[in-house]
Amino acid sequence: MAGLAFYYGFQKQSPPPVALDAPVALDQPAPARPAGEAMRDRMEAFIKGKQQEIVAAIAAVDGTDFRVDEWQRPGGGGGISCVLQDGNVFEKAGVNISVVYGKLPPQAVTRMRADHKSLKVPESGFLPFYACGLSLVIHPKNPNAPTVHLNYRYFETENEDGTPQSWWFGGGSDLTPSYLFEDDARFFHSQLKAACDKHDASYYPRFKEWCDKYFYIKHRNESRGIGGIFFDDLDDKDPELIFAFVRECLSSFLPTYVPIIERRKDLPFSEKQKEWQQVRRGRYVEFNLVYDRGTSFGLQTPGSRVESILMSLPLTAAWMYQYEPEPETDEAAVVAVLKEPKEWA
Amino acid sequence: MAGLAFYYGFQKQSPPPVALDAPVALDQPAPARPAGEAMRDRMEAFIKGKQQEIVAAIAAVDGTDFRVDEWQRPGGGGGISCVLQDGNVFEKAGVNISVVYGKLPPQAVTRMRADHKSLKVPESGFLPFYACGLSLVIHPKNPNAPTVHLNYRYFETENEDGTPQSWWFGGGSDLTPSYLFEDDARFFHSQLKAACDKHDASYYPRFKEWCDKYFYIKHRNESRGIGGIFFDDLDDKDPELIFAFVRECLSSFLPTYVPIIERRKDLPFSEKQKEWQQVRRGRYVEFNLVYDRGTSFGLQTPGSRVESILMSLPLTAAWMYQYEPEPETDEAAVVAVLKEPKEWA
Repeated sequence: MAGLAFYYGFQKQSPPPVALDAPVALDQPAPARPAGEAMRDRMEAFIKGKQQEIVAAIAAVDGTDFRVDEWQRPGGGGGISCVLQDGNVFEKAGVNISVVYGKLPPQAVTRMRADHKSLKVPESGFLPFYACGLSLVIHPKNPNAPTVHLNYRYFETENEDGTPQSWWFGGGSDLTPSYLFEDDARFFHSQLKAACDKHDASYYPRFKEWCDKYFYIKHRNESRGIGGIFFDDLDDKDPELIFAFVRECLSSFLPTYVPIIERRKDLPFSEKQKEWQQVRRGRYVEFNLVYDRGTSFGLQTPGSRVESILMSLPLTAAWMYQYEPEPETDEAAVVAVLKEPKEWA
Repeated sequence: MAGLAFYYGFQKQSPPPVALDAPVALDQPAPARPAGEAMRDRMEAFIKGKQQEIVAAIAAVDGTDFRVDEWQRPGGGGGISCVLQDGNVFEKAGVNISVVYGKLPPQAVTRMRADHKSLKVPESGFLPFYACGLSLVIHPKNPNAPTVHLNYRYFETENEDGTPQSWWFGGGSDLTPSYLFEDDARFFHSQLKAACDKHDASYYPRFKEWCDKYFYIKHRNESRGIGGIFFDDLDDKDPELIFAFVRECLSSFLPTYVPIIERRKDLPFSEKQKEWQQVRRGRYVEFNLVYDRGTSFGLQTPGSRVESILMSLPLTAAWMYQYEPEPETDEAAVVAVLKEPKEWA
């Protein structure tokens, strides 16, 4: 996959820097903007606000500040990466926003048209595009506390005169425990289902199944974790309605993950449990490096910020040859669920 | 890449089990067989003998026995995996032989013809093939001692009547130090050059460059290690001559690596050096999971033994966000060589 392998020309200047030191309320509402304002600007403003809110909340749980790096992408765009490493509660937590724009080369346009029949390709063959998104991965230290991943993004193509052409949203969130706490699994999924149901009763079942299919480690015949929701190319409603759905999902993240962390972060654990966590971390690395389309796309994009893409990897991981859990252990219980995804909500 | 994604029918029975407890002399000569005997059988016998010899020598250095697993491949073939984990000297050492046969599907044949114009495709579209090889990866505990990788393999295609059609050899060996000892780098390369030069003066320069190109982590703009040799599709001489070259290379492995290990395994090291080694291990994982064609091919082959493919991964690895060595340190010195491969022999 060449992906966005080449950019020719830039569409606009990089966005202005964002002040990250401004205090943000946890219950901050979605930004109220004039309806006429461009969706790209509204989504960008929304994810910037959410990044600050999430970083503040996770830093408070840990008692450690995030390192904040703002960066420009040579081909157009840039981002802000916030990383907390080797904290009190978290081994590694990365919360990243990025904005990318430029022109898609003909090969990439052809691939994209497979999912978006209505894409009109300019005579030059190069299609102007814009993308922005927030993504986060949080790996806790305690093996009883689950890893979480979340990503929400917006994509837009333009006509050559700069007017908007096609657009879509994508995203989702999923949980990866080393040890299965059924309460956590049910709570995580119920929260996602509640967010989905407010917008479309078909969303949760469709996106839950999509998630199970996407986060699948084929060579291990097991899922990366216990799932959540995943969707892409979502454009079948008024963009206002889908944007409202994405805001709902992103806003449900902290009230879902923080309570789970609070009840698991101080549980006692053994060396053996830490070892099992490290083996599960290895599987996480396998999924991200072998299968994840976002990682692969990022690594193949010239000028992309590799450290922001790979901040999803755990601080430490292990590969122990032929490490098979004994039957009827807690380790075997989580593997059983990874082999056969369950309904949790 | 679908690779050898589907096999239809098996060509022959699996090879008989090999006794691994037989004592093997370190200077064991290449097996003397009647010239008329099939190359596949001679190569298979040769790599089996070499596996025993290498396993015995590495076990002796460590003072720990290898675990030996013999396995059958559901689609045809099988192998023997020998792994030493968490030993005295070695964090993880895997020495694997495998034999695979079946019929290549039309897609895989088309790709293969790009490098082998003379391949005749049977009317059915499915091409009978046979492959065998030895591969090893050894990760020492001491950060001053380098990781080594080696792989030699033989590939053959058949006409539908079972007579041999095309054949070729591939392989190589390369060194991945966390800290650069120029003596080790020069010795490793000189030994490979000496083995090459006995057979063809053009081999070492060609295969050294091929190695530098192959083991390149594109998204990091650095090599995996300090190289060695790498070649594939080698069929431009009498097969006897190439087999003799492959035997020479494989036989030079122990006299090259063991002396390097002996002089590094007991050097004192700091926590900081161990940390740096773990970061380098992370890069090793990145190369193997993102770029290595053998790993990717293996993981995509149904019925392949995943634990034998991924035994190349280190026991432990780390990803530390934005971990940049200070200028003019030993860590920076090794990175400089990874950024710009040197001539060592």
